[in-house]
Amino acid sequence: MEQGLLVVVSGPAGSGKGTVLKELKDSGDFVFSVSATTRAPRPGELDGVNYHFISHEEFEQRIVLGDMLEYTQYCGNYYGTPKKEAEEVLASGKNLLLEIEVEGAASIKAIYPEAVLVMLLPPTYAEQEERLRGRGTETEEKILARLEQAKAEVQRIAEYDYVVYNHSGRSHDAALDLMAIVRAEKCSVTRKSDILEKFFS
Amino acid sequence: MEQGLLVVVSGPAGSGKGTVLKELKDSGDFVFSVSATTRAPRPGELDGVNYHFISHEEFEQRIVLGDMLEYTQYCGNYYGTPKKEAEEVLASGKNLLLEIEVEGAASIKAIYPEAVLVMLLPPTYAEQEERLRGRGTETEEKILARLEQAKAEVQRIAEYDYVVYNHSGRSHDAALDLMAIVRAEKCSVTRKSDILEKFFS
Repeated sequence: MEQGLLVVVSGPAGSGKGTVLKELKDSGDFVFSVSATTRAPRPGELDGVNYHFISHEEFEQRIVLGDMLEYTQYCGNYYGTPKKEAEEVLASGKNLLLEIEVEGAASIKAIYPEAVLVMLLPPTYAEQEERLRGRGTETEEKILARLEQAKAEVQRIAEYDYVVYNHSGRSHDAALDLMAIVRAEKCSVTRKSDILEKFFS
Repeated sequence: MEQGLLVVVSGPAGSGKGTVLKELKDSGDFVFSVSATTRAPRPGELDGVNYHFISHEEFEQRIVLGDMLEYTQYCGNYYGTPKKEAEEVLASGKNLLLEIEVEGAASIKAIYPEAVLVMLLPPTYAEQEERLRGRGTETEEKILARLEQAKAEVQRIAEYDYVVYNHSGRSHDAALDLMAIVRAEKCSVTRKSDILEKFFS
């Protein structure tokens, strides 16, 4: 059984990641990793679907045991990617998609150099700003903070393998790009150590 | 204008290259390079369509002038890829497909490291042999010679970027693989030197 592909997708605020990832989810070509968190479930959130909700103690124990591929803290809560689950998906030959920010993506690449890192971007910074402001739900201060962070994230594009542009109203194209990336990576010679062996078997 | 992609496809005898390349041609996503040759046109062959038919003297002059990307001699005739034409296609943003054997592919990669090299293979050597014998039009001696050459070509797979398997009756899948490879390569971060510049423009 050929290993599945570990695909990490990062999308700075305003990249329109939600729509693109929803299409990938619906395609059935990927298993989406469910993160673990120590924060309390919100109304309607289901354990094992939205997150694995675990205690602070269990999370720290799993860090120590090496069962978090990557993790971060935010507002006093842990968020992380359970390792065992990820490895089971990959071993089954399915492609695993992790939606993760830049720092976490770098951690994953350090452990799994074979992971494919994709950054989803709006075509320009101007459009990113427009999208963030367009929501009209956030304070100016919060918008500026999110833009600053997005800017810093984009600067790290060289750590990624692919950049996919999500043009307004064309999220389907971005989803197709991502599917093509997976299909192409599966044909990559450097990913296959046994081409000759299999061919001459 | 973004440069087109230079895609080199090699397929050892029995790989079913013809069917796959025909589908790519029909897709309109590629310009197929027309080789130059010094051999005489066969009945029905058109200059500029099947080949550029040129004289021995002109071919050698163009070699000297550096206007052949790669060339080879076979049965006393030259065959080669005109450079100027290739560069014009790429500059226009179109993808150029060269169908070329392993030695020529290596020459191209040496000059254009950004070229994408794809080897099309039957799933196994046994199937390759079956396909070659299945034609029933060649002498045993000729079949063995072709198999030996195909074997030697496959051994050089590590010089290629991608391997695409052409399973019997599934040449459409192989064509889709090739199209995905092009789409993915267009998203490759290492191919884009100006991501940040464009983003913050």
